[in-house]
Amino acid sequence: MPGPLQGIRVIDITTNISGPSLTMILADMGAEIIKIEKPKIGDDSRKMGPLWGGEGVYYLHINRNKRSIVIDLKSEEGKEIVYDLVKDGDVFVENFRFGKAEQLGFGYETLKALNDELVYCSLSAYGQVGEKRHKPGYDAIAQAESGIMSINGTKDGGVARVGVSVLDQGSAMWGAIGILAALYNRTQSGKGQRVETSLFETGIFWTGYHLLAYMATGVEPVKMGTNHASFAPYGAFETKDEQIMIGISNDSLFAKLCKVLEREDWIADSRFSKNLARVQNRELLNSSIEEVLKTKSANAWIEQLENGGIPSSIILKIPSVITSPQTESTQMLIDVDHPNIENLRLPRLPVQLSETPLEITKSPPFLGEDTISILEERGVAPDTIRELVEKGVIQVHSKYVEN
Amino acid sequence: MPGPLQGIRVIDITTNISGPSLTMILADMGAEIIKIEKPKIGDDSRKMGPLWGGEGVYYLHINRNKRSIVIDLKSEEGKEIVYDLVKDGDVFVENFRFGKAEQLGFGYETLKALNDELVYCSLSAYGQVGEKRHKPGYDAIAQAESGIMSINGTKDGGVARVGVSVLDQGSAMWGAIGILAALYNRTQSGKGQRVETSLFETGIFWTGYHLLAYMATGVEPVKMGTNHASFAPYGAFETKDEQIMIGISNDSLFAKLCKVLEREDWIADSRFSKNLARVQNRELLNSSIEEVLKTKSANAWIEQLENGGIPSSIILKIPSVITSPQTESTQMLIDVDHPNIENLRLPRLPVQLSETPLEITKSPPFLGEDTISILEERGVAPDTIRELVEKGVIQVHSKYVEN
Repeated sequence: MPGPLQGIRVIDITTNISGPSLTMILADMGAEIIKIEKPKIGDDSRKMGPLWGGEGVYYLHINRNKRSIVIDLKSEEGKEIVYDLVKDGDVFVENFRFGKAEQLGFGYETLKALNDELVYCSLSAYGQVGEKRHKPGYDAIAQAESGIMSINGTKDGGVARVGVSVLDQGSAMWGAIGILAALYNRTQSGKGQRVETSLFETGIFWTGYHLLAYMATGVEPVKMGTNHASFAPYGAFETKDEQIMIGISNDSLFAKLCKVLEREDWIADSRFSKNLARVQNRELLNSSIEEVLKTKSANAWIEQLENGGIPSSIILKIPSVITSPQTESTQMLIDVDHPNIENLRLPRLPVQLSETPLEITKSPPFLGEDTISILEERGVAPDTIRELVEKGVIQVHSKYVEN
Repeated sequence: MPGPLQGIRVIDITTNISGPSLTMILADMGAEIIKIEKPKIGDDSRKMGPLWGGEGVYYLHINRNKRSIVIDLKSEEGKEIVYDLVKDGDVFVENFRFGKAEQLGFGYETLKALNDELVYCSLSAYGQVGEKRHKPGYDAIAQAESGIMSINGTKDGGVARVGVSVLDQGSAMWGAIGILAALYNRTQSGKGQRVETSLFETGIFWTGYHLLAYMATGVEPVKMGTNHASFAPYGAFETKDEQIMIGISNDSLFAKLCKVLEREDWIADSRFSKNLARVQNRELLNSSIEEVLKTKSANAWIEQLENGGIPSSIILKIPSVITSPQTESTQMLIDVDHPNIENLRLPRLPVQLSETPLEITKSPPFLGEDTISILEERGVAPDTIRELVEKGVIQVHSKYVEN
C-alpha cells in the first residue's frame, strides 16, 4: 500500500542531521526524495563515525527511502538541473546558514517564480531573523542557548547535553509539521508557501513549561536529576540491586504506591498525603521510600509495582532496549536489505497510519546511486549525461557507471 | 489571515500533557479544537503546580486557541453529544490507556461507522500492542524504558531525566505529523484513517543513533556529560569565569578554533589534526583547550569565537533565555490577553508559514467556558441545555451561567 504522501516530490539540498532527518519523515510517508549531494564526499554525515559497512551510522540512520543525485550546485549547469526539478516539484528543503541559499541561486523568491505551488522550507540554527542568524550552530550549542542544558543533569553535578539530539530531530519534526500543513493548505488554496523553523526556536519551545513556571513564580528552574519539580515521589530509587524509576503525579496514585510498599500509614500522614506536601518533604519521602525498596530486587519491585498500577520501570541501557519485549512487540526496529551491511536494522518512525502505512522500502543510497536514473527521467540524453560527468557537474556511483 | 488548517474541527478528549500538546499544534494552525473535559476538575493539568492566576502552568502552556466544553463521558446523554460532534468533525484525539476509549464507547470502529472521513488518533504510553500496552506511563518512565535516561548525565554522576518533557512533547508532534499526513491523504482518497503513536515508540526513535552505533560496533553508549561520542572538541569548557560550549564537528572547523586560541601548532599535531585522533585524545585535548580558555572571560571568548566562525555559546539559564536578544528577535514569546493573568506570555510554535501564519488568538479557556456556545451551535435548545446542566451531564463556567 502506498504511503500518505504518494505522488509528492521533494527536492532536498540539506546535509548533516536536521535537514536529512526532516526529509526522512516525508520519505517514510511515501514522498519521493531527490537528495542532492555535493561531488566527491557527498553529505558530510556519510563519514561521521562510527562507520558501518563503510557508511557513517548517522547517515544510515536518516537517509533510507531516498534517491541520491550528485550535483555541483556552484556550476551553472548544476543549477539548471535543480531548477528543472523545482518546476514540477512539490517541496524544496534547505538547511544552509542564513543567506547561503539565496547566494547559490536557490532563494525562496527565485524558486517561487519557477513554481508557485512549491512549498519551500528553511531549517536553520537560529532562524531567519536576529543577530545570531549568521552564526553556525549545532544541537548542543542550541541546547546551551535555549536553556535546556542548564536544567539537565543531577542536582549537584555538572550540566549535561541531552544525550539524544532533541534539537536536530525536534526541528526536523517542526519542519515536517509545517510542510505537511502547507501541503494540506495547498489543496485548498492552490498555492505553495514558505516554511521556516530552527534549532534555537525548537529549544525555546521545549523549555516552554520552565519559562512559564519562572514567569509565574520568579523561582529559577534548576537541575533535578531524575526528579520532577512539580511532583513527588518522581524519580530513580535504589533497590537491593539496581535503580528503578517510579512516577507519581497525583494523590490517588500515591495511595496505591503506599499499598504496594505496605506503608498505608503514609496515606494519611500530613507530610505525605498531598502532592504539595510531598514536594516540600521530597528528601524525607525519597529516603523513606528507598528504605523500603532496598529490601528487595529491582525486578521483584517492578512486578509488584506493575500489578499495583504504578508507573515504574527499570532504567534500561541501550543493549537491553534493542532486545526488550516492548521494542519487539511494537516492531520499532525494521530489517533493511543493504548491499554492504548484513543485519542492518533501522528504527521506523514512531507513528503509524492504518490505511496508508509507512514503510522502509529502500536502503540509504550510495553517493550518486540515482544520478543517472533521475536525469533519464527528466529526459536528459545519455550523451549529455556523459558530458556532465566529464565536466564534474554531476557524479555517478561507480557501480552504476556505464562501460 | 487564517491558519493552514482553517475549517478543520478537532474533537479532543485528551488530558494532561501529551494529548493537549498535540491538539495545541493543530489549534495554532487554525483548526477549531473542542476540548472535552470531565465535570468538576476538568483536565488534571489545571491543578498541576505551580499555579498562575489560579491555573496550572502546565495547563496554560498547552491549551491556548481551544474551546472548553464539560461533558460527563460516562452518561448516555454525554456520549450522544460526542457522537453528534464526531458526525461532521474531521479529527478525534484520545490519550487513554489501551482499551479505555473502546470501553467508553469511543473506539475507532464505533466512530468510523459514524463518519468514515474521520481521522482518529490514539496517543498512548506504550502503543497499541505488546504486554506493556496496559501499563500507565509518564514521560520519565518512558525515558527510562527507551534508554534515553541511561545515556543522559555526566560521565561519573548519576543518570538524569531529560530536563524537558521530550517524550510528552515529541509524541505530541508525531501524532500531529500523522494527523496532518492523514488529512492531506484524505484530500486524495476521501477517507479518514487511524493514526497511532506513543511515548515509548518516540523514545526508541530518539535513541536511534545510539541503537545503530551499538549494533554497528558492539560498544555500549554511555553518559557523556556535555561531550559527544563522535566529535572532539565538543562540550562545555571552563573559562576565567563561567563555562562555555564549543562544538567542532570537522577538521577545518578545528583549524579555525586553533587560530582563535592562537595554538596553530595543533593543526598539524598528529594527536589533534584529525577528528578520530581528537576523539581518542579527548581528555588531553580538553584540558589543553581549557588551559588557554582560562586566561579570559566567557564573554570575551564568545566574541572571538563568533568572529572566528566557531559554533559556541554561553550556557544560558532560564531567566536569561527569556530576555535573550535572539528570543526577542525571533518573537518566540507572545503576549496573550488573559482575564486573570497580567503579562501572560506563551511560547509560539517554533515553525512559521508565510501565507497562512500561525497565531495565538484565544487564551487557555476556563473550564466549561464554551459549553453553551458549542451546544447552541449544534442546535441544542436552551431548555435542553439547562436540563443537561441540572443532570450533571454538562457543566458551564460560572461566568457564563444564565440567571
